[in-house]
Amino acid sequence: MNKRSNSRSLLLVGGGADRINVRYACGFDAPDPFLYVEAKGQKHLLVSMLELGRAQQLGEAVQTHTHDSLGLKPKERRSLGQQALGLLKHLGLKRIQVSADCPIGVVRELEKAEIKVRVAKAPLYPERLVKTDKEIEFLRASQRAAVSAMKAAIGMIEASDISAEGHLLQQNGEVLTAEIVRHQIERVLLDADCIAEDIIVACGDQAVDPHERGYGPLYAHQFIVLDIFPCSKTSGYWGDITRTVLRGGADPMQTKLYKTVLKAQKEALASVKPGANAKEIHQRIFDRFVAAGFVTGMKDGVPQGFIHSTGHGVGLEIHEGPSVSPAGTELEVGQVITIEPGLYYRGLGGVRIEDTVVVTEKGCSALARCSKEWRL
Amino acid sequence: MNKRSNSRSLLLVGGGADRINVRYACGFDAPDPFLYVEAKGQKHLLVSMLELGRAQQLGEAVQTHTHDSLGLKPKERRSLGQQALGLLKHLGLKRIQVSADCPIGVVRELEKAEIKVRVAKAPLYPERLVKTDKEIEFLRASQRAAVSAMKAAIGMIEASDISAEGHLLQQNGEVLTAEIVRHQIERVLLDADCIAEDIIVACGDQAVDPHERGYGPLYAHQFIVLDIFPCSKTSGYWGDITRTVLRGGADPMQTKLYKTVLKAQKEALASVKPGANAKEIHQRIFDRFVAAGFVTGMKDGVPQGFIHSTGHGVGLEIHEGPSVSPAGTELEVGQVITIEPGLYYRGLGGVRIEDTVVVTEKGCSALARCSKEWRL
Repeated sequence: MNKRSNSRSLLLVGGGADRINVRYACGFDAPDPFLYVEAKGQKHLLVSMLELGRAQQLGEAVQTHTHDSLGLKPKERRSLGQQALGLLKHLGLKRIQVSADCPIGVVRELEKAEIKVRVAKAPLYPERLVKTDKEIEFLRASQRAAVSAMKAAIGMIEASDISAEGHLLQQNGEVLTAEIVRHQIERVLLDADCIAEDIIVACGDQAVDPHERGYGPLYAHQFIVLDIFPCSKTSGYWGDITRTVLRGGADPMQTKLYKTVLKAQKEALASVKPGANAKEIHQRIFDRFVAAGFVTGMKDGVPQGFIHSTGHGVGLEIHEGPSVSPAGTELEVGQVITIEPGLYYRGLGGVRIEDTVVVTEKGCSALARCSKEWRL
Repeated sequence: MNKRSNSRSLLLVGGGADRINVRYACGFDAPDPFLYVEAKGQKHLLVSMLELGRAQQLGEAVQTHTHDSLGLKPKERRSLGQQALGLLKHLGLKRIQVSADCPIGVVRELEKAEIKVRVAKAPLYPERLVKTDKEIEFLRASQRAAVSAMKAAIGMIEASDISAEGHLLQQNGEVLTAEIVRHQIERVLLDADCIAEDIIVACGDQAVDPHERGYGPLYAHQFIVLDIFPCSKTSGYWGDITRTVLRGGADPMQTKLYKTVLKAQKEALASVKPGANAKEIHQRIFDRFVAAGFVTGMKDGVPQGFIHSTGHGVGLEIHEGPSVSPAGTELEVGQVITIEPGLYYRGLGGVRIEDTVVVTEKGCSALARCSKEWRL
């Protein structure tokens, strides 16, 4: 625990609202909600009988409590708020901090029992923003898995034939779809013991809606955005990478779009270093896009242009601090962030190029290498 | 919306604390938190620009709002509470209900602006407990995927050889491990477009800790508990099945343990019908186990015996109402529940047999069939 944690009494809901922070704080996770308390420099877990064995494996670093050890009545065991109350009473705590994510139901039960509840300032664990060497190893492993999957996906697109109608065709003559490529990505990630949800394989205008995962046939002469973000089942750390490719020839406008995004990403990567302002990195990309004629705004009722942040932190969450956006602050050594400029226009499609990098003394370093060759 | 929803003003946090209820209420889900409001019989979503396209696909059933349409300032956009406030102001709402899971941070921001916040009684959507025909079809599809994966896993164990040391061996002569079997299960589920986390392949005493997923070599003459619960990526509905198998001969005590659990499950399944009391179903199993000499309690500091509920509801959540436990109530037609008695003792291992069934007019019906042959 850091100094700040030592001097506070904090209640978190593991497995639920505060799952990631609890995992970070004590290494424990479970499918159903459980309670975590820090008080007087000691960590406590309140878990069900079902979780007791796993919780005890944490050893002396964490004191484990159960419904039985606290003498909770059957009705109390069914209420997270009553469980929290039982634990706080046992620890002799009459005032407690909770996260802004703490369920109101728990807070109301505590307040009814005259426990004074204060919402702790975010981030609860500022040290989460700067990764340890061990965390960087975990992130690198997940990023390597993402790159393997990316190479498999790009390989399938590269090996495709083009039908008279412009569809991409598999070796067996059948149409290559977003679903087939996604399935291949998921297989590679599963083999690397990673979970992968919402992988994006979005062709043409599908990519203009940035949260559309993509579906149906893939076409030649159209951009295909591949965004892969696996989470390691063992470490819980994420990787995140995006590449955009195009099978068959590109027209001059497509080439200009790709090159503009690529140049913006290169410049942004070159400007990442300790002390660099993430807000300014974002703004420079925005300005560069405008200067190249790529404006951002609503068009035909749809947001188009550079419609998302330049990047975000990656760790036990796929989206965490620090932000590389108008909300950005100064970068520090050991932070792990994505740099992922993108441009999206109906009729032209989308281009996004994303790498996950660690901020080093001298600049930054990609967690894993992956080609940005785009014309296949 | 049902009558109850029509007369209330309700705020939920989609993608976050109230993710499943929002998905149930309006069919929308997203990776990052967004807001959902029901008021005056109308459904509303407040989503980021990134989600706008997908949200609009819901059509007229849901009114879509964005940070722009509400005129939120940049700082307000970064706070879920301020976003909620903006939406409530726009809708002219000065009092609102939230779920017990609503983040305290959101509630505090609303209260600061003199919005009156009340915690709605659970369950928010009582109709979720009774599945529609469409929901049952989704559940059946996930359960079928689970059964396919189960058959693949059991097939691997059945095809194994037994080494001189009692290890199970694959066809290639290498030791068959929990990890290898789990990987095969995950592959089958991936091919069925399902997500699978925390699949259990637990041999011998590993199964006595019910949340231990299992690891390392599998052994002959020991129980292997296989618990498979996939979630369909498309529908969001779960399946849930457990089988226990044993390769090589079983001793009389193992045979007695298995037969006792099997008989308890059969009797429980036979007693499931509309109007049956789920609490009594659970208690009868408990009593039957005691009568057979299988007591429940702490032994050597570890909970042993029948240490979990008989069952739980399955739907958009793997664990939802109704509960088949001391908290159980009367069952109704269309409810989908698991029946999964189990007994666990150190030195003997664990046996759990689980099926997911739908309550019918006459009794209940398994969502998918799967053999309970256990001696392989």
